[in-house]
Amino acid sequence: MQIKVLRNILEANQRISDQLRAMFKENKILVINLMSSPGAGKTTLLEKTLVQLKEEFNMAVIEGDIQTSNDAMRIAATGAQVLQINTQGGCHLDASMIQEAVSQMELDSSDILFVENVGNLVCPAEFSVGEDHKVTILSVVEGDDKPEKYPLIFAESSVMLLNKTDLLPYVDFDVDKASGFARSLNKDITIFPVSARTDDGLDDWHEWLRREVDRKKQD
Amino acid sequence: MQIKVLRNILEANQRISDQLRAMFKENKILVINLMSSPGAGKTTLLEKTLVQLKEEFNMAVIEGDIQTSNDAMRIAATGAQVLQINTQGGCHLDASMIQEAVSQMELDSSDILFVENVGNLVCPAEFSVGEDHKVTILSVVEGDDKPEKYPLIFAESSVMLLNKTDLLPYVDFDVDKASGFARSLNKDITIFPVSARTDDGLDDWHEWLRREVDRKKQD
Repeated sequence: MQIKVLRNILEANQRISDQLRAMFKENKILVINLMSSPGAGKTTLLEKTLVQLKEEFNMAVIEGDIQTSNDAMRIAATGAQVLQINTQGGCHLDASMIQEAVSQMELDSSDILFVENVGNLVCPAEFSVGEDHKVTILSVVEGDDKPEKYPLIFAESSVMLLNKTDLLPYVDFDVDKASGFARSLNKDITIFPVSARTDDGLDDWHEWLRREVDRKKQD
Repeated sequence: MQIKVLRNILEANQRISDQLRAMFKENKILVINLMSSPGAGKTTLLEKTLVQLKEEFNMAVIEGDIQTSNDAMRIAATGAQVLQINTQGGCHLDASMIQEAVSQMELDSSDILFVENVGNLVCPAEFSVGEDHKVTILSVVEGDDKPEKYPLIFAESSVMLLNKTDLLPYVDFDVDKASGFARSLNKDITIFPVSARTDDGLDDWHEWLRREVDRKKQD
């Protein structure tokens, strides 16, 4: 009975996600579903990317939070178009929320739409939102065992950003071990060690975004 | 329809949680439901508490993880009785899982049962597991805005442990701001800044546990 309910929810989500994906393809908008634990640095990373690539791309953001619009205000300060979704307790975004959000945004000239999911390493991985890529941030302070302990989100992600590398000297985190776990779940995952705080490694992440925007335009 | 399903699940959980609570009361076992984001330090804190209080109390642990039994192995190394629950994708523990776990444990002489929940700052807060107290760990690396952004878990908790204080010099985290947010949600919350890594502040947490064990014995 419980399984049946869950399947129905996931199937309904998949149908709307497929509609969104077709619409994003037609409009040649690269869509990134950005996920992580609370406080791993999603918003700080986005702030940096939005500022550093603002001359190259037209970028928009959908912010997902249980409540508050603090993150949307931080994003708006970069000049990017942003819309806040408050899930009111919900532990993840789903495709119908994105469909509603997109209907209220002006995305005709957008190159990239970032969807910043609710801070949660479990539930968001189960719900596609029409994205081209799931990107998961793992802060090095969380520990190198996290890909092994929370496998679905890393198995589903095209990119793992190992953030807060400026704190590596102060924590026990083995980059090779974390990367090895992630690759054992997903041999094609691309891994970028970055510090959104110090900008270290962001160039590689931005170069990846440029290639994906190009690919989407030619798709 | 969705709301109806969720209510049924929560009501069923509450019934089992009430049964567990009555059983723990009869056996005078203090039960702590320990919650946090992934990697905030639940297992490290438990390791320290289990070792430092082992002469005083008989303590047991139920470990909740999506998969792996890595944490249970770390706990077993302290000498404490431990049972691992793998939720196979589930984002939180619920009362029926604890009921099943408890039926497989020997708790007659236990003073404290710690339930280490799945790493998640959202879903575990909605499901009581017969505990006397919810205790939430917030790592200072996650940011001082987290109680405002994830209010339910802090509103429900008797204690907030601000962990990884050894990293305070390297991050932007305002202890007063985080504490203020938590107290605005829950005026009775007790807040202990600790570093499970360096032992800093653990004495206050242990003194709180001693008082709660005493209260439970006299209950």
